[in-house]
Amino acid sequence: MEIIVAKNSGFCYGVRRALETARRTRRRCAGRVLTLGDIIHNPRVIADLEKQGLRSVQNPAAVNGGTVIIRSHGVAPEIYRILKSKRASVVDATCPIVKKIQELVARLAEQGQEIIIVGNPAHPEITGLLGYSRGRARIVESEALARALPQKKSRAVLAQSTQDIFLFGRIVAAVLERTDELQVFNTVCRFTRTRQKSTSELASQVDTLFIVGGKNSSNTAKLYEISKRILPNTHFVESAAQITPRLLRGAKTIGISGGASTPPEAIAEAVAKIKNSFDRHSQRESMVQWQS
Amino acid sequence: MEIIVAKNSGFCYGVRRALETARRTRRRCAGRVLTLGDIIHNPRVIADLEKQGLRSVQNPAAVNGGTVIIRSHGVAPEIYRILKSKRASVVDATCPIVKKIQELVARLAEQGQEIIIVGNPAHPEITGLLGYSRGRARIVESEALARALPQKKSRAVLAQSTQDIFLFGRIVAAVLERTDELQVFNTVCRFTRTRQKSTSELASQVDTLFIVGGKNSSNTAKLYEISKRILPNTHFVESAAQITPRLLRGAKTIGISGGASTPPEAIAEAVAKIKNSFDRHSQRESMVQWQS
Repeated sequence: MEIIVAKNSGFCYGVRRALETARRTRRRCAGRVLTLGDIIHNPRVIADLEKQGLRSVQNPAAVNGGTVIIRSHGVAPEIYRILKSKRASVVDATCPIVKKIQELVARLAEQGQEIIIVGNPAHPEITGLLGYSRGRARIVESEALARALPQKKSRAVLAQSTQDIFLFGRIVAAVLERTDELQVFNTVCRFTRTRQKSTSELASQVDTLFIVGGKNSSNTAKLYEISKRILPNTHFVESAAQITPRLLRGAKTIGISGGASTPPEAIAEAVAKIKNSFDRHSQRESMVQWQS
Repeated sequence: MEIIVAKNSGFCYGVRRALETARRTRRRCAGRVLTLGDIIHNPRVIADLEKQGLRSVQNPAAVNGGTVIIRSHGVAPEIYRILKSKRASVVDATCPIVKKIQELVARLAEQGQEIIIVGNPAHPEITGLLGYSRGRARIVESEALARALPQKKSRAVLAQSTQDIFLFGRIVAAVLERTDELQVFNTVCRFTRTRQKSTSELASQVDTLFIVGGKNSSNTAKLYEISKRILPNTHFVESAAQITPRLLRGAKTIGISGGASTPPEAIAEAVAKIKNSFDRHSQRESMVQWQS
């Protein structure tokens, strides 16, 4: 049996950076250190951070002094003002790529352009971006919503940094049917693009594919959808424990991929679980390949 | 039985205008009057014009004085220079919508932008547009060609005025996978958009659909493809004579559509042929509805 791990599976640059910032801040600051919202969409990492004394608070109005870490998804300008009024010391771990998208939204809003943001309206990155739009942005998460837009001379379109690049393309095509002149900013970050591309390529090579990660992670769920479209035999598991012998029955080539919030250890554990399960029932040894 | 004729079937604004210009020029000019290329992609109209003494010449270098009419598709700047050197008096019937696309290509080329033109490389409108691009344009006619483009920071995309709007959208989506920042100009003209939209809506309402027009007309062929994708029982006919009883067998609701170069009479004849064929074999009268 062969196991292939997709390129760029696991923690992306922005998430790794935010986690390091959080841990460093916890070590250096004597007082209370909070993260505004869960710093990562992964229950396991969150449990580990809580053990180190890093708790999260959902509502900025509930803050009272101390140190507050802004997570990689970023927040609306209003949130910085609230935290200031609560005398909190802010450590900003917004992903630099998301920061650039926030600046783009602000610039387009200033130009008076109508902005279409392709993304999940419930995702914190999108809530943050909306805060920079001066009310000029609409969130569009499906082709059907795009087709319901009124005809317009000019629009700008951009995407959540972890958007499914293929769905983004299809939504842009639908917006184009309603717009004469369209500025399209492909703000899907290159880590996401590479991960989605390598996962979809892997899905057409293997007979079974596991997406490892938190079910509440938007970008991991998108990887699952991308792979499932190509390979119906794709499974979304939160940890190696969920990879049962039943799911491995008859498998010869197995792919593994994980989202931006999937810790490298979770990927390694999934590989080990599959490898052990095979080696125990076979004379031959399984081969593992990490794409790079 | 019901017959429904799609909105905007038959001669578009640009074609009607070019034909009127050609006939008026023929009446007013005493000397030789030529059209540069067939003024319309329709053998029947061409035969009619020839009877009126309006012949076409393919090569501008073969012109020697006289009056030359530029057809609605437009030509490259070089062609005007050649005609001038041949002492021809030029009557320009370029469609004003195509003229605007030519100006757009010239402006983008001047800005140093890479230009992707979505269209048929063999179509005269595209040959004309290329002449304004200073070598900065690439013709892309398929998603596969778009996916073969190298990664680039910035590009502009526009379309042949009679491009299939749905294919244009899919190609834009593919170009977006290879580009960070994309300016998209939806240059598919509104007559084409309405015609394609009403034809595709009609294809999902009727059980049989006839596309009437010249097989060498690019935009008529696109209507056929759009309809055929939705309704396999779509037929491409050059004239009413090709609508045989076999094709009408079992039909209850019949759609008719035609391209920008399909004369209104050809549509009317198709309606009459179907109506007669039905009324002859039935007690009831067929209903005809012209969408507007």
